[in-house]
Amino acid sequence: MGKAYDVMAATCPSRTVLHRIGARWTVFVVNALDDGPRRFSELKGHIRGITPKVLTETLRSLEADGLVSRHAYDENPPRVEYALTPLGRSLLVPLRAVRLWAEEHVPDIEAARSRRPTP
Amino acid sequence: MGKAYDVMAATCPSRTVLHRIGARWTVFVVNALDDGPRRFSELKGHIRGITPKVLTETLRSLEADGLVSRHAYDENPPRVEYALTPLGRSLLVPLRAVRLWAEEHVPDIEAARSRRPTP
Repeated sequence: MGKAYDVMAATCPSRTVLHRIGARWTVFVVNALDDGPRRFSELKGHIRGITPKVLTETLRSLEADGLVSRHAYDENPPRVEYALTPLGRSLLVPLRAVRLWAEEHVPDIEAARSRRPTP
Repeated sequence: MGKAYDVMAATCPSRTVLHRIGARWTVFVVNALDDGPRRFSELKGHIRGITPKVLTETLRSLEADGLVSRHAYDENPPRVEYALTPLGRSLLVPLRAVRLWAEEHVPDIEAARSRRPTP
């Protein structure tokens, strides 16, 4: 049986999915929602250095792809929370592994970079 | 015991590692080397739609980070092959999972996108 989708094919829709997963801040936002729903300000505080504009754009993309849900509570002042959907939670599994790999292999990468300056 | 590295910290070196992993074509090139060494032209043929310039840049970055090795054989015409290093092979594990996730969840993402147009 052939594979239904193949990211190596130029026009396969899985490629746009993969590019969105690989978007610069996706892995940070998905990982930051690992522990449960968070407000915008909590996300911004947790992912140090992300700008409000980029966080807003990343959340909108993840919402449009069905990975993150947004819930506005009818309170005063209004409270808005973001959470992973079941689909987003399934993506968390590989992205958590990518994050752990990055955190574990810093010394290896730094050693390689010092042997050979980055172009 | 505290974690040595934390991608959520703005100045943590693991963040630059994660951004490089997340670079647009990294996941394609690493996955394309899953089956063993390949020449430039083979990689270009396998990853449909990647330009030579982008493939060259991605390979150079991966080499600089110690994830890919480049071997020039003393033949006529010259033959150059790219392969994953042991470090690159360890990254293949989470990136293969990311690729599979993308290929498996196309219908879910497309359904979400059709419910709510991408911004």
